[in-house]
Amino acid sequence: MWNKLILLSVVALTFNYLALAYEPSPLQDFCVADPNSSGIVYSFGLHLRGNTSNQLGSKVTPVFATQLPGLNTLGISMVRIDYAPWGLNPPHTHPRATEILTVLEGTLQVGFVTSNPDNRFITKVLQKGDVFVFPVGLVHFQRNVGNGNAVVIAALSSQNPGAITIGNAVFGANPSIPWGILARAFQVDKSVVDQLQAKF
Amino acid sequence: MWNKLILLSVVALTFNYLALAYEPSPLQDFCVADPNSSGIVYSFGLHLRGNTSNQLGSKVTPVFATQLPGLNTLGISMVRIDYAPWGLNPPHTHPRATEILTVLEGTLQVGFVTSNPDNRFITKVLQKGDVFVFPVGLVHFQRNVGNGNAVVIAALSSQNPGAITIGNAVFGANPSIPWGILARAFQVDKSVVDQLQAKF
Amino acid sequence: MWNKLILLSVVALTFNYLALAYEPSPLQDFCVADPNSSGIVYSFGLHLRGNTSNQLGSKVTPVFATQLPGLNTLGISMVRIDYAPWGLNPPHTHPRATEILTVLEGTLQVGFVTSNPDNRFITKVLQKGDVFVFPVGLVHFQRNVGNGNAVVIAALSSQNPGAITIGNAVFGANPSIPWGILARAFQVDKSVVDQLQAKF
Amino acid sequence: MWNKLILLSVVALTFNYLALAYEPSPLQDFCVADPNSSGIVYSFGLHLRGNTSNQLGSKVTPVFATQLPGLNTLGISMVRIDYAPWGLNPPHTHPRATEILTVLEGTLQVGFVTSNPDNRFITKVLQKGDVFVFPVGLVHFQRNVGNGNAVVIAALSSQNPGAITIGNAVFGANPSIPWGILARAFQVDKSVVDQLQAKF
Amino acid sequence: MWNKLILLSVVALTFNYLALAYEPSPLQDFCVADPNSSGIVYSFGLHLRGNTSNQLGSKVTPVFATQLPGLNTLGISMVRIDYAPWGLNPPHTHPRATEILTVLEGTLQVGFVTSNPDNRFITKVLQKGDVFVFPVGLVHFQRNVGNGNAVVIAALSSQNPGAITIGNAVFGANPSIPWGILARAFQVDKSVVDQLQAKF
Amino acid sequence: MWNKLILLSVVALTFNYLALAYEPSPLQDFCVADPNSSGIVYSFGLHLRGNTSNQLGSKVTPVFATQLPGLNTLGISMVRIDYAPWGLNPPHTHPRATEILTVLEGTLQVGFVTSNPDNRFITKVLQKGDVFVFPVGLVHFQRNVGNGNAVVIAALSSQNPGAITIGNAVFGANPSIPWGILARAFQVDKSVVDQLQAKF
Repeated sequence: MWNKLILLSVVALTFNYLALAYEPSPLQDFCVADPNSSGIVYSFGLHLRGNTSNQLGSKVTPVFATQLPGLNTLGISMVRIDYAPWGLNPPHTHPRATEILTVLEGTLQVGFVTSNPDNRFITKVLQKGDVFVFPVGLVHFQRNVGNGNAVVIAALSSQNPGAITIGNAVFGANPSIPWGILARAFQVDKSVVDQLQAKF
Repeated sequence: MWNKLILLSVVALTFNYLALAYEPSPLQDFCVADPNSSGIVYSFGLHLRGNTSNQLGSKVTPVFATQLPGLNTLGISMVRIDYAPWGLNPPHTHPRATEILTVLEGTLQVGFVTSNPDNRFITKVLQKGDVFVFPVGLVHFQRNVGNGNAVVIAALSSQNPGAITIGNAVFGANPSIPWGILARAFQVDKSVVDQLQAKF
Repeated sequence: MWNKLILLSVVALTFNYLALAYEPSPLQDFCVADPNSSGIVYSFGLHLRGNTSNQLGSKVTPVFATQLPGLNTLGISMVRIDYAPWGLNPPHTHPRATEILTVLEGTLQVGFVTSNPDNRFITKVLQKGDVFVFPVGLVHFQRNVGNGNAVVIAALSSQNPGAITIGNAVFGANPSIPWGILARAFQVDKSVVDQLQAKF
Repeated sequence: MWNKLILLSVVALTFNYLALAYEPSPLQDFCVADPNSSGIVYSFGLHLRGNTSNQLGSKVTPVFATQLPGLNTLGISMVRIDYAPWGLNPPHTHPRATEILTVLEGTLQVGFVTSNPDNRFITKVLQKGDVFVFPVGLVHFQRNVGNGNAVVIAALSSQNPGAITIGNAVFGANPSIPWGILARAFQVDKSVVDQLQAKF
Repeated sequence: MWNKLILLSVVALTFNYLALAYEPSPLQDFCVADPNSSGIVYSFGLHLRGNTSNQLGSKVTPVFATQLPGLNTLGISMVRIDYAPWGLNPPHTHPRATEILTVLEGTLQVGFVTSNPDNRFITKVLQKGDVFVFPVGLVHFQRNVGNGNAVVIAALSSQNPGAITIGNAVFGANPSIPWGILARAFQVDKSVVDQLQAKF
Repeated sequence: MWNKLILLSVVALTFNYLALAYEPSPLQDFCVADPNSSGIVYSFGLHLRGNTSNQLGSKVTPVFATQLPGLNTLGISMVRIDYAPWGLNPPHTHPRATEILTVLEGTLQVGFVTSNPDNRFITKVLQKGDVFVFPVGLVHFQRNVGNGNAVVIAALSSQNPGAITIGNAVFGANPSIPWGILARAFQVDKSVVDQLQAKF
């Protein structure tokens, strides 16, 4: 009996593992057993304000393949981002997707930095209704530069785009990246690295 | 002098032709001469209500590579769709993209039909904040089933997804598809085809 | 015992589900257990005249991954299409493939319609030995315009291209698309929609 | 004046060079200036028997992007192959495409060899109407094993698949591959290499 | 005359621009005018020790499409990296490529951080002859942890992979990212940001 | 009990089969259960001289997905090749990858042959530190043209590139390709084919 349960979970794991691990072009119309179930059609509260009561004053609400299995193999996903006044979606990259966004509410400074050697900082202040694109893999951010709330709807060119917040990945990795590496990379002494790592 | 102008236009055409004709994965961070220009960063009135005073009671406002050249090679785009009460975005397909949408306002019936031989009709009524996906190439529609306006933001997995409105493509092609073909395909007589073609 | 059978079928389903669901570039020479079995090498009667005794006077005989499992991951497939005199392969799209065809026998009018907003109707009459291409996702058809039989061999750029016959998908979906949607989309009244839906 | 002509040819070259050099997924419905021209729609004599009066007794008639420019970006092409009795389409590979074929006429032995280390030889005798697939990049051949003519229609998963006839590429390269390399690779002495190179 | 020269340069630019901007699968054997020229075959001093006399004690010598035009459309490139004793190739990402490397000389600590929310730090100490892989888009580094020099040969899955050194992109962007954004993102005060930005 | 074991092995097989069979773009950071295990990080003796005491005087040491499972879905791999003096890596193709190499030691003649109809032989003599590229699917070789050993590190644009040694595939297939086919393809008589087949 236990064996069977273990077996079942192995089977289920196999399934999930593979469902997560591959992202080709679709071979079927869609890729869920029952399209009338929550696989393709589902209710997300993407109209609900995200809780921005955190250190950064921003909140990302994702609709990736994890949330909406029907997205599997289809190469697209969506997020809502809320910003408290002066809230920040801090510098981050998406390793597997380009992002496009439109501002629903508020005034937003957006920016990205081009790759080496130029590291050109491209920035704009967006108003309601503006559209902006962050090319795949580049470091980018958005900041609410108004005194009211701001909201965007963004879409990404993968159902599992991934996100790497620079601060968390570099100073908050688990376990920590050795301080000597960070001190040399950022040309600061151990106390500054300690201070930075303490925050994440 | 004229020769030069002709030549210039040939060059320009060459350029545009190619810029439009290819959609690979990106080889650079982005693909516009001056990213501080309107290539990547631009103001669209995506917050503005589209004019739905038309026969269908709906209006699509696209942000494709034609509108935002910086999208080239990046494989994503965005649209706003407005619906008057009971307005319809009629059955159509995107030949080169999957579509994901979220309802910003109103109550929307969405649906798509799976491919042959099942032609299963998958339909849901979406409320504000719901998310839905239309797999690449399938016939789909949205209809406002409320008495107020409805609005969605949608994204597509190509910077030039294309759209084929079934009614227009079949009954409103230019020049017309011969009536005999349509009569047999839809199993109706000439008068019905005439009636349908007259509308487009 | 029953549990084990259920389990086995779950495993089998998992396998099939995945085998169907993904179409990447190949990672092996081929993707069947025993290439000497019918996986890669198999006998289809593609030389046999299809039975065109139906309302449309045409018959498609497919060789997709469903028929020939060895096609999996290889991105190509083949069909034979037979046409009775004046038989029609009615307007349809392939959501995941471009199609190329050559006429083996007969005289065939072929056509496709470009995407919005032009909806340009491109049509030609093909003779034996002519070759034509239908770009991915566009609405297209073939009609025998001779008094003898016609035959084509066509190939598609996916092992599971899908096919969406416009008439069936729009007027013959299961369950039916609500008549109100179709009436508005095609700008006709309920009686015409009823008439069209009755045929599919 | 000459400068302008030179310029024009540079422009034209640019165009052709790029049209040939890239094969992405399509970004437009199709990729020729005038679809009513011979770009997409064209007459090939694919019903005509190829001239098999050559050493091998076979003849390939290709419809690639070179012959049919409208195939550009669409990832598919077609060929007719004729075989005299016991004619051979000798061992070759397609560096950029899988091939599917069906026998229109005759009896054909087909075969391919899997990659290292197994180098398994998979072979079948095909009758009229049979379908077979040669996975991308593998060495394969077809031989007419009947006393009448044989004909196939094949399709390839690229508009410019390339073909590498092993004999020509190895023993008929231009200039020649040094005999010492071939002697060691094939474990034969110079006289055998000389004999082989003399034939190509 | 000047017009013509301008025109010529526009044409040339067009050419280069496109040659750089797209990275599809290849449509030809290769994509340079003269394969006997330095396009495909060229001499790089990849056996020469890079100059590591810099703040980080490391030096990357790239062979991308910029250095070797024949790589265009082929989806691969190579680099040599030299490390002085305790030298560091600091945390960076490649927006368009996975990287594989092997240690030719020395003892190297390598590591990467997985994406949100885990930010798991995966690290190993590699000896001569070991092989390691950095998945596309993830933050990674290498550090010489021996007292002698270290050398690696690495390859990347794009001919133009791009590189984003975190320190440079975040604290050394040009122009600078506003300090308020960085202070909040890294949860430090202005003086620390000033200190970090001063180094880049 | 036995049933359960059989079942488990079916599950395991399913898993392995799929893990091997598909090579899409990655949907996760990586694709092994435990990245701290040998999946992504592993010790290969790529610094060790391969045993070249064989008929060809060369030895390929591969690091493909079979050796390093963490490469799955990441589209890259690496090999070391050793050459005794005048040793030869004989003419072969990779059906699913382009190859880039650099010479670590020795003097190497490299060459490839373009596809039909030109079959142009492109060859160069490489010194230590030179870099060369073999486009996907083309026949290529390397030969040590010095009196000392030679060593290269090469990378391939697939985690499972495949390799087809022309001699083995054509004359050493298992079972053998019928002599009549080879005699006609290479325009030699049975005795020469016998001689060639005897060697493999």
